[in-house]
Amino acid sequence: MGRGSVSKPLKVALLGAGVVGSQVARIILNEPDTLEQRIGRRLELVGIGVRNLDVPREGIDPALLTTDLDGLVSRGDLDVVVELIGGIEPAHALVQTAIEHGASVVTANKALLADELGPLSRAAQEKGVDLYYEAAVAGAIPIIRPLRESLVGDEITEVMGIVNGTTNYILDKMVTDHLSFDAALAEAQALGYAEADPTADVEGHDAAAKAAILAGLAFHTEVTRDEVFCEGITGITEAEIAAADQLGCTVKLLATAKLTSDAGSVIVKVHPAMVSRKHPLAAVSGARNAIFVNSREAGELMFVGAGAGGAPTASAVMGDVVTVARNRRRGTAGHVGAAYTHRPVAPIGESTAQFYVSFEVVDRPGVLARCAAVFGSHGVSLRVVQQSYLDDESSAEEHPARLGIMTHATQEARLSQVLSELREADFVGSQVRMMRVEGF
Amino acid sequence: MGRGSVSKPLKVALLGAGVVGSQVARIILNEPDTLEQRIGRRLELVGIGVRNLDVPREGIDPALLTTDLDGLVSRGDLDVVVELIGGIEPAHALVQTAIEHGASVVTANKALLADELGPLSRAAQEKGVDLYYEAAVAGAIPIIRPLRESLVGDEITEVMGIVNGTTNYILDKMVTDHLSFDAALAEAQALGYAEADPTADVEGHDAAAKAAILAGLAFHTEVTRDEVFCEGITGITEAEIAAADQLGCTVKLLATAKLTSDAGSVIVKVHPAMVSRKHPLAAVSGARNAIFVNSREAGELMFVGAGAGGAPTASAVMGDVVTVARNRRRGTAGHVGAAYTHRPVAPIGESTAQFYVSFEVVDRPGVLARCAAVFGSHGVSLRVVQQSYLDDESSAEEHPARLGIMTHATQEARLSQVLSELREADFVGSQVRMMRVEGF
Ligand SMILES: NC(=O)c1ccc[n+]([C@@H]2O[C@H](COP(=O)([O-])OP(=O)(O)OC[C@H]3O[C@@H](n4cnc5c(N)ncnc54)[C@H](OP(=O)(O)O)[C@@H]3O)[C@@H](O)[C@H]2O)c1
Ligand SMILES: NC(=O)c1ccc[n+]([C@@H]2O[C@H](COP(=O)([O-])OP(=O)(O)OC[C@H]3O[C@@H](n4cnc5c(N)ncnc54)[C@H](OP(=O)(O)O)[C@@H]3O)[C@@H](O)[C@H]2O)c1
Repeated sequence: MGRGSVSKPLKVALLGAGVVGSQVARIILNEPDTLEQRIGRRLELVGIGVRNLDVPREGIDPALLTTDLDGLVSRGDLDVVVELIGGIEPAHALVQTAIEHGASVVTANKALLADELGPLSRAAQEKGVDLYYEAAVAGAIPIIRPLRESLVGDEITEVMGIVNGTTNYILDKMVTDHLSFDAALAEAQALGYAEADPTADVEGHDAAAKAAILAGLAFHTEVTRDEVFCEGITGITEAEIAAADQLGCTVKLLATAKLTSDAGSVIVKVHPAMVSRKHPLAAVSGARNAIFVNSREAGELMFVGAGAGGAPTASAVMGDVVTVARNRRRGTAGHVGAAYTHRPVAPIGESTAQFYVSFEVVDRPGVLARCAAVFGSHGVSLRVVQQSYLDDESSAEEHPARLGIMTHATQEARLSQVLSELREADFVGSQVRMMRVEGF
Repeated sequence: MGRGSVSKPLKVALLGAGVVGSQVARIILNEPDTLEQRIGRRLELVGIGVRNLDVPREGIDPALLTTDLDGLVSRGDLDVVVELIGGIEPAHALVQTAIEHGASVVTANKALLADELGPLSRAAQEKGVDLYYEAAVAGAIPIIRPLRESLVGDEITEVMGIVNGTTNYILDKMVTDHLSFDAALAEAQALGYAEADPTADVEGHDAAAKAAILAGLAFHTEVTRDEVFCEGITGITEAEIAAADQLGCTVKLLATAKLTSDAGSVIVKVHPAMVSRKHPLAAVSGARNAIFVNSREAGELMFVGAGAGGAPTASAVMGDVVTVARNRRRGTAGHVGAAYTHRPVAPIGESTAQFYVSFEVVDRPGVLARCAAVFGSHGVSLRVVQQSYLDDESSAEEHPARLGIMTHATQEARLSQVLSELREADFVGSQVRMMRVEGF
């Protein structure tokens, strides 16, 4: 240890110098002594792979830059490859090549891991190298390490989180400022919280990738992105937001991974939910992320912090870089935590929840009873019924009313049958909407 | 891997089978297959050291019990020693002996670590064994691992937490049910949340031990319990609780470790504080614990969960047991994270905070101005002044009033000078009380 030591530095290659990569480069280049003290060996940044050599990059020696990323990761002398280009290809091939050439890998790439975590973990394990990815879920919030290590002597039963800051910002605006989805999205885009093409965020795909990673880790199994039930926030109406508020709830996009009661399978889902203001996740506002974990021994735990942004994400990446570099120095690799159970993902119909169902009816005598009978005939019992009259010119006897019904907890399959039946009933006068409810 | 494998099991000895130890024994004895899958080797519980062999211990084979703890840890064939007896001796000698004999150690003993973390870490490092202690601070909440690994590529500037459930419960009762300290303590004792001798909790000693551990880890230095400034909750008055409420604050016992602005030294302190209800720690109620971390890159992070209790603490202990057992299986040890800087603990006078000062005055014309002048003469500026009249029979011209003054942020040394001067002033009619303020 110490600058005077003769031990060779550890060689690091960085792939990508964008929002996150540029911050990682800054820390590695600006803090060599501190990092050396923490690792016990010096880090040497040997190359940075980018797409475009002409972009000016503050604080980075142009000689470090290359567009030959494949050549960089195949050098054969690398200790650590930090992948921060994102997307599936070429990131996937580059990470595989890095592992094949004996480098440990740190990545923040949730899209890649949601598809390939299992195979990449096995490849790393076979090569005796590390694969760390703390930044891939919830940015700066330490959640991967707590799941892989801190809670590994416990039985996790549920992981539920707000893992997408863009949608959390939009929903906040809808709830607090009574904006429509479109208006809130436009504001988020103007402020740079949402991208020009917001699909991955607002349709829940980004959250679904993170849910797949969390579910696999929490339940020691393999879950891929396409197995995750996913519903976005684009269809949420102002009426639903107002109804949630009346019920003491807010609306959040939740990513949930839950063990079924027999622990034989897992439910993994992303959807908007009415969250009771008494639930700790309800208070997590703006672009922050939060993850709530329930386990047999530890009970409820919650982790809150910045879910994205260059510097916060770089903090998580650098924690991994130091950890894998320490392992390198000692000639070892961390535990890869490969899945040892096969717990299939159960269909969403087997999921149990409370539901909020809303639709218009023609308020004739007996209609409420007929609605209630539809729920009852499928074994779904009602917890709260909201009824409000709509402005109209019709006779006093047959004016339209809006019904909002919160059920007790029930299987989603039963609720689907209720919805189908309501959609066909002649006394139902509008689109039937459903939202799941949490913590009520 | 698998039960049929020929690899020998890893030998574990447990010291203590009390509140936490009995739960750890239950998990090790009831979950052998799950633990084997997660570790890659079977665990064998070879002995449990206790004081009294006659206590009936559910689910534990009496043949495992011994009162010869020294003999147990000196067997020479142990892989892991789990120390859960608490206190300094014999725990200290037993942990040292275990390390000398080549065993990795897992402990939840904050009292021991607050005095001996440095020397024990160095002993473990020299022997190439692990020393893990996730359960020593904030029970089930993963905080040691995030500080040792997740945030090790970042610069932590502050760690602040509610790390003692007993005092948090008592303060909650004082705030919510308007109980006096004595009445709230009696209730906590009746419910088993406070011990018969509550000194370690209510005087802040338990929190101070945790603050020392957190400060050392966060700032890569060594801090011992006796260097921590420590003030308990026994003197808090109902008037202060009411004043806090008026200011939109609650009262919490905070453990804080902060880097000074030049990063050259650290402030480590435990004291009650008025905490703004806007601060995330204000909502942490009852026996829960929470730790708030501020760092240069990641910004604000918060961790919330059960800070004590047999099963939650056992969850944290078992996470460490699995981690050190995995290291053993691979013939390695984790990074001990020994201190590499020497950052002295600064005297409390160098600490900067806002303060709430309260006392009675005789409300003669000009008295408020004279009070303000005392603050002003020491460069302390006022942010809020509360004045309330007290019931009395005296003349309308000279009735006693109660002043509550919140300052802007200032050095504690200056505030102390203000307090001394007020205590000597002839227009001050009662004990001058001070409470620190956070997040206002
Ligand atoms: N941004 C966040 O807040 C955040 C949070 C958590 C996780 N992440 C993850 O971190 C990763 C990086 O995100 P980012 O926001 O930093 O992305 P970004 O700003 O788009 O940067 C991507 C970088 O990769 C380079 N790159 C992209 N494709 C390339 C190719 N085919 N060949 C060579 N270089 C290529 C780009 O080069 P040029 O500079 O030449 O264009 C750029 O430097 C992603 O996996 C993302 O999901 C990001
Ligand atoms: N309780 C919590 O919620 C909690 C939370 C976090 C951390 N911790 C820490 O965990 C540790 C254990 O706490 P605990 O609450 O489980 O304590 P406990 O209930 O008092 O149990 C202590 C155990 O150690 C044994 N023991 C004590 N002194 C001994 C001696 N000199 N020789 C042999 N055996 C001895 C006792 O034996 P007998 O059974 O024969 O009396 C008992 O089994 C402490 O360091 C504590 O600070 C506790």
